[in-house]
Amino acid sequence: MAQKPSIPKGTRDFNPEQVAKRNYIFNTIRGAFETFGFQPIETPSFENSSTLMGKYGDEGDRLIFKILNSGDYLEKFIQLFTLRSNFLFESFINEYIIGEKDIISFYDAEMAESVLLVENFKKLYDKNSELKGKGSEYFDDKFITSFYVYFTTNKDEIFNFLSKKKETSKIRIYDNEDSTDFNFFYTHTCSFFYQWIVMNQSSLANIISEKALRYDLTVPFARYVVQHQNEIEFPFKRYQIQPVWRADRPQKGRFREFYQCDADVVGSKSLWQEVEFIQLYDIVFSALKLEGVTIKINNRKILSGIAEVIGASDKLIDFTVALDKLDKIGEEKVKEEMLSKGISEAGIEKLQPLFNLSGSFESQIESLKSILNTSEEGKKGIEELAFINTAISELGLSTATLQLDVTLARGLNYYTGAIFEVSAPKNVQMGSIGGGGRYDDLTGIFGMKDVSGVGISFGLDRIYLVLEELGLFPETVTKNVEVLFINFGEKEALFSLKAIKELRLKDINAELYPDAAKMKKQMNHANKRAIPFVVLVGEEEINSHTYTLKDMVSGKQFKFSLQELITHIK
Amino acid sequence: MAQKPSIPKGTRDFNPEQVAKRNYIFNTIRGAFETFGFQPIETPSFENSSTLMGKYGDEGDRLIFKILNSGDYLEKFIQLFTLRSNFLFESFINEYIIGEKDIISFYDAEMAESVLLVENFKKLYDKNSELKGKGSEYFDDKFITSFYVYFTTNKDEIFNFLSKKKETSKIRIYDNEDSTDFNFFYTHTCSFFYQWIVMNQSSLANIISEKALRYDLTVPFARYVVQHQNEIEFPFKRYQIQPVWRADRPQKGRFREFYQCDADVVGSKSLWQEVEFIQLYDIVFSALKLEGVTIKINNRKILSGIAEVIGASDKLIDFTVALDKLDKIGEEKVKEEMLSKGISEAGIEKLQPLFNLSGSFESQIESLKSILNTSEEGKKGIEELAFINTAISELGLSTATLQLDVTLARGLNYYTGAIFEVSAPKNVQMGSIGGGGRYDDLTGIFGMKDVSGVGISFGLDRIYLVLEELGLFPETVTKNVEVLFINFGEKEALFSLKAIKELRLKDINAELYPDAAKMKKQMNHANKRAIPFVVLVGEEEINSHTYTLKDMVSGKQFKFSLQELITHIK
Repeated sequence: MAQKPSIPKGTRDFNPEQVAKRNYIFNTIRGAFETFGFQPIETPSFENSSTLMGKYGDEGDRLIFKILNSGDYLEKFIQLFTLRSNFLFESFINEYIIGEKDIISFYDAEMAESVLLVENFKKLYDKNSELKGKGSEYFDDKFITSFYVYFTTNKDEIFNFLSKKKETSKIRIYDNEDSTDFNFFYTHTCSFFYQWIVMNQSSLANIISEKALRYDLTVPFARYVVQHQNEIEFPFKRYQIQPVWRADRPQKGRFREFYQCDADVVGSKSLWQEVEFIQLYDIVFSALKLEGVTIKINNRKILSGIAEVIGASDKLIDFTVALDKLDKIGEEKVKEEMLSKGISEAGIEKLQPLFNLSGSFESQIESLKSILNTSEEGKKGIEELAFINTAISELGLSTATLQLDVTLARGLNYYTGAIFEVSAPKNVQMGSIGGGGRYDDLTGIFGMKDVSGVGISFGLDRIYLVLEELGLFPETVTKNVEVLFINFGEKEALFSLKAIKELRLKDINAELYPDAAKMKKQMNHANKRAIPFVVLVGEEEINSHTYTLKDMVSGKQFKFSLQELITHIK
Repeated sequence: MAQKPSIPKGTRDFNPEQVAKRNYIFNTIRGAFETFGFQPIETPSFENSSTLMGKYGDEGDRLIFKILNSGDYLEKFIQLFTLRSNFLFESFINEYIIGEKDIISFYDAEMAESVLLVENFKKLYDKNSELKGKGSEYFDDKFITSFYVYFTTNKDEIFNFLSKKKETSKIRIYDNEDSTDFNFFYTHTCSFFYQWIVMNQSSLANIISEKALRYDLTVPFARYVVQHQNEIEFPFKRYQIQPVWRADRPQKGRFREFYQCDADVVGSKSLWQEVEFIQLYDIVFSALKLEGVTIKINNRKILSGIAEVIGASDKLIDFTVALDKLDKIGEEKVKEEMLSKGISEAGIEKLQPLFNLSGSFESQIESLKSILNTSEEGKKGIEELAFINTAISELGLSTATLQLDVTLARGLNYYTGAIFEVSAPKNVQMGSIGGGGRYDDLTGIFGMKDVSGVGISFGLDRIYLVLEELGLFPETVTKNVEVLFINFGEKEALFSLKAIKELRLKDINAELYPDAAKMKKQMNHANKRAIPFVVLVGEEEINSHTYTLKDMVSGKQFKFSLQELITHIK
């Protein structure tokens, strides 16, 4: 039974040190969220598939981990795709072909009346007792109708070979001369049926899977808000720190299970929230001693406005995708790409001031004003950015810098106002360590209209890597065992445990080496675990009610009373 | 697109108050774990199926949530179970039947040489180009061998109808006289193939699912220990607080997603660990103010010893299952059940002292000594229990009681020494709120022998219900927003945010109402969220650099400087 154990690709084990470091980041973020008035919620790890599917685009749907239905899902599936499909066909064949009916005239007559044909299928099904029982719920009207639609849509191809026989008027499968026709027809229709199944994969997947692992925290949050709308007092400020799962190809820094740390406000369009989120980023990264992060901000309205001005409103996505590459490929290549996407030379010319944007937030705002003076939406975007910038200038940031970046287009399909992205300090090679924005219709997908939301997210794994690289984790982050009592035997162990009990009540992490092993082995254990203090209790100590403490770093030894011991270790 | 949102049955959303209360329990347990020297690890939410399957019995396997492989898993599955299975059969039929070979003599000749037949299958497969391509990796030797084994095992039935034709020596499918034979044979073998698939469901499930959600924390921990054995310093004391998932039927207090809080030590057989776990339970429940819990203890060696003494060593499970019901069904019914399971009258007579066991731990130990004086294993069990009890008596418990319960058999298949279970105080109707025990071969399933482990678990959901019922959650557990600043407009909001920034730096949870809504609406918002303080900042306050604080409970108002404000709220 021995197996070489491993874990699925893209997942991780965390050892005590890693857990402690991750918790240090979580706790810092959580503490800041709470001082800003955000309250925690938690949602289930898996949601109904219908809650998640179709919310992240086709690529997202593909990357959602689906959970197999429990119970006899597989049996049902097998019944559906093997025996029962065969039976359905055989019933059809038996009735209409082997039963010596005229298949062609049947189609000529019935084709126009699909309802009747579906009913005929249904009748066939109803009277076929072998189709009944377990799993038969999948052969409902919808299934049969769907099959019929495919069958009739492709009838020309399916019956192409039959038409060659039309002159004989009757298809006699068991004709002595024509017995291979049956085989041909069967294989042919099987193959069509197979294609139909492949085409309907996603709906058929529901037969074996109705639940899926959370893909992000935003859609479950939207679901939560709609489901609990009567219990929620709006505006609702919630935070959520939970893992999400994505079937992405694993690579450096990208995992199949990872935590998201989100804070969102729903139910208010106030720009003060954008202001507060910038403060929140600043507070968290300052608390983590990660100084020098850049909080980049843009606004979808600016991007729409620019697209409008250059006559490319219908090419907003192409335009922003190209603009987003300015840093990487440079001005000329960006222009080439825009041209190739059908944006006019004249339009691109109008963009020139954009390529020369630089300097302070304020001077960039001034340049944007001249570019966007004909776009109402653009002007609205400028106004919003200016409001936010003025407020932040008044309030001040501790260690972060706010920067206007008109090339920032992150999640454009989603955001309707502000767009945020946080970059690590320039001395670290790392993508964004946080991002967010405003979305005007968060809950619309679940039927609750006009609920505006704005939120930000912290990228835990990347923040971890940055803090590690810069050596910013505090030394005390791992709460190690502080003192190990050496075990010299039963009597000594019991005496030690009485002291250990008192130490623990004083919140000192203390333990007894479980076995009365050789002294050297026990000391080695303390060394390997980097335990700073060791206590030795022998006959003498028991008699004098004292404890010999050895400082494992300095090597010094002390003889202490219990109270002195506690004071020294704390 | 509007959907009425809901969550899967057996799962839960947690609102801010519930999250806070759950965290209160988690933090208490975590704190105690750490003072006892346990260190946290975390493992992935899903493991390879092979890590989990077969570790929890058949029932457990059924309750494990399996995750669908990502990508074109469904297409593969369909190919396997529809077209490809048909092709395999058709190839077989074409070669051996339609090809006019003598099927009976083929079997007579080849049956004895299975290898050859498998090779023939394989050759058939290899030369059938239609079987190649996507998904064909499943038609490997193992698949074909397995199929062959089933086929040959059932050959008599499959070829029953063929034997009737034996006199003609040749089966000619397309004989003019016999064309229905083909159809019959095809359907017949299809049906057998289907049965074979159903029988092999679990191995076939791997085609569509290779990962599964964690079912408990113990097996992943065992996997962790084996996988990371070279990095771990033994004895290894780890704790783990993570969710697990089970496809159990949901009912009151039983969920499909729930947290486990486990602490285990591996790599030492020292009984001091049992002693410490009893202390740990006492410390945690005392810290939660849940006084009066009973920590029940038993030892598998006691149960084995009793079974040995009454001559029912081979009926250990039946015996303990019956004994476990003593509380519920009483002495007479227990004896009846034992009789019905084949335990002798004489044996049951020897049990009489067991039914009269009562009184202190020590007096029960004495009675057990007389019952078990002929069983070496039983005597070892008594010795262990006595050691633990003596140590606990010396060390003392704060609020819990240690009780010997020889009927306790929890997880008997698993535990080899001590067995623990914690009952809530008698005034609460609730099952066990914790349990654990010693298992001598935790990591053997993964090929690492002789690693003894002992551990305990806390039942979060039940502890939550008990604390709720007894009103034991501290009032301060929910860290609510402490102060809301009323928003009177842009200038006032900015002034307020400057103060809010200072409050937050002092760790006060403070927020600004985001919109300059009507005063009444804002005050209502504070009331509904039970925010204790509201600050009003108008023209006058700005000019005088003061803040008007309203205590929402007493209704009193104060005019404060910023420093006074901070002092008053803190």
